[in-house]
Amino acid sequence: MDNAATTQIRKEVLASMEPYLSERYGNPSSMHKLGLEANSAVSESREKIANILNCGASEIIFTSGGTESVNLAIKGVAFAHKKGQIITQKTEHHAVLHACEWLEKNGFKVTYLDVDKSGLVNPLDVESAIRKDTILVTIMYANNEIGTIQPIKEIAEICKKRKVLFHTDACQAAGYLDLDVKSLSVDLLTLNGSKIYGPKGIGILYVKKGTKITPILHGGGQEFGIRSGTENVPSIVGLAKALELAQKEKDSEGKKLAKLRDKLIAELLKIPNSQLNGHATKRLPNNANMSFYGVEGESVILMLNEKGIFASTGSACSAKSIEASHVLLAIGLSHELAHGSIRFSLGRQTREKDISHVLQVFPKIISDLRGMSPVKT
Amino acid sequence: MDNAATTQIRKEVLASMEPYLSERYGNPSSMHKLGLEANSAVSESREKIANILNCGASEIIFTSGGTESVNLAIKGVAFAHKKGQIITQKTEHHAVLHACEWLEKNGFKVTYLDVDKSGLVNPLDVESAIRKDTILVTIMYANNEIGTIQPIKEIAEICKKRKVLFHTDACQAAGYLDLDVKSLSVDLLTLNGSKIYGPKGIGILYVKKGTKITPILHGGGQEFGIRSGTENVPSIVGLAKALELAQKEKDSEGKKLAKLRDKLIAELLKIPNSQLNGHATKRLPNNANMSFYGVEGESVILMLNEKGIFASTGSACSAKSIEASHVLLAIGLSHELAHGSIRFSLGRQTREKDISHVLQVFPKIISDLRGMSPVKT
Repeated sequence: MDNAATTQIRKEVLASMEPYLSERYGNPSSMHKLGLEANSAVSESREKIANILNCGASEIIFTSGGTESVNLAIKGVAFAHKKGQIITQKTEHHAVLHACEWLEKNGFKVTYLDVDKSGLVNPLDVESAIRKDTILVTIMYANNEIGTIQPIKEIAEICKKRKVLFHTDACQAAGYLDLDVKSLSVDLLTLNGSKIYGPKGIGILYVKKGTKITPILHGGGQEFGIRSGTENVPSIVGLAKALELAQKEKDSEGKKLAKLRDKLIAELLKIPNSQLNGHATKRLPNNANMSFYGVEGESVILMLNEKGIFASTGSACSAKSIEASHVLLAIGLSHELAHGSIRFSLGRQTREKDISHVLQVFPKIISDLRGMSPVKT
Repeated sequence: MDNAATTQIRKEVLASMEPYLSERYGNPSSMHKLGLEANSAVSESREKIANILNCGASEIIFTSGGTESVNLAIKGVAFAHKKGQIITQKTEHHAVLHACEWLEKNGFKVTYLDVDKSGLVNPLDVESAIRKDTILVTIMYANNEIGTIQPIKEIAEICKKRKVLFHTDACQAAGYLDLDVKSLSVDLLTLNGSKIYGPKGIGILYVKKGTKITPILHGGGQEFGIRSGTENVPSIVGLAKALELAQKEKDSEGKKLAKLRDKLIAELLKIPNSQLNGHATKRLPNNANMSFYGVEGESVILMLNEKGIFASTGSACSAKSIEASHVLLAIGLSHELAHGSIRFSLGRQTREKDISHVLQVFPKIISDLRGMSPVKT
């Protein structure tokens, strides 16, 4: 129930990696047999991914994960332009927000757009925020905490019309939503292995041909000079396999999970003083983020853990921060309610019986905790 | 014969990674059982490595590899100081040189020291290059192409006396040389998994407590706020295991390889118009870099490959560059001789019979190629 935090590597993915974790260990830059076979593996993986994203192979840059891809997209465009304004919004992942905040300290301007109560950005707000000096708009595809799906195609088209680069963080969207960069009209797109049943420590930045971008890691000139460092061959192979499988099963998986999630939400909403956070329909099929007045989310997580249920209070990527979720505050929740929020994120292993198990134990956990709480509901 | 390019993951290392590539796939930031066990694995690995480096666990920062560690050290210190001069030397890895060149374009000053004919930096040259605005000295521990071991302890002590930060790229040194950061007196030290029979895509930056450093990857605040991004748990576990084994076998392995290498060098020097590049004694025990007048290194590599021998013309990390090695030019080789250079880098699998096999086929390859060459020897 915590697949938005990270996913388990699929057996088929691990199997595809194994030769490159053992016998085929070459450095793709080497000229001998071991190097050439490693180089072919990287090239084939790049081709596979490019086919899925409907782009050229040379537009796929391998990185060490979502955080690096996002930093490369934002800082890379900023450094290439030397100055200017960046537009983003308040429920982005911290990788986006903190990269932007750092750029602000270094002479760039950043506009953080508001979202509505369901977490949606209004494309018209993006349009009015664009100025003569705007260099980049970066809006996530789907939110990692509340699952809200942004209208990125509309935003991308506004950016295109206004000749401003557009980046989207698609880490959570992969596996459920369309990743065709041409139909989405994006210039830069971030993907991550660890969210799609692939390995950790590997990511992709799609960089549209001709996009001016400055590397953040300099060195041997790998990845078309955009990202140096010896290629992580086994993880690249695994990522390609994971994305291939995710793409193939996107529709069936989405349908299955939406059904399970809807049941979970409907039943949990029967608990008094509860609410669903995020958009009712424009939401990832695996996400259920809910608030329960008068409880502390952390206590709920610990009690669920005792019952063998793994969930999250919000984003797991925020290294054990005790602050209330910036996402929940941005959609208008009080600090109190934000602290009483739980994210269930279903995954490919989730079955009907798992939902039943949650529904069996969850109401009691809430009523027990409420019984102990000084806050009366 | 190309272990300086990359090494094969040891069986014990892969075995240590396997649970984290399958069942134990949690995100270390998650509060439930899966997260806690991932978090423990990262903490234990950090402790192990800190013990080997003789430092505190919070001084160990996990990165995606040597290139990222080097970029973080150099740019991180530069950004934290906002301006100033950096001192390095001409035979550094491209990760160091290109990071420095980029900083030069962004307002920093960089001094590139010369080396002598054996590739050594003179500590007195470092001392005289230090100015009032010097913020960092970065000198590699051992060279990746010619194996020359720099007097980094002497250089580090000069830096300490002059209150200038000192970073060393120890990627090639690990497994053969002392890594005690206290006795070496370094402030920052870079290590890499893929050079010590560990996984690719994982590295370490040792950052001495109190060192001012700005992150290059912003986000969830992992790695004590210095390097964001979900931790690559299996590779972190594998790196700790690899470093532990490398440390344990350092002396015996070094002795064994030096003996094999000395035999290789002595026999190959019998080929007319040949020479050893780098220092005769201050050199990594596994490195033999040699030049053969009148041949093209690339052709030699291809002919060796036919015989099942994998070697390199220089650094493999330079993404198939056709330029002559900057290292060989820096130690005074002509372009011609630099192009006729071969790097043999032995490893733990290298046996007496492998050396014999090279010695059996190599002289004929050189004489055949010389026979076809327009350059008369």
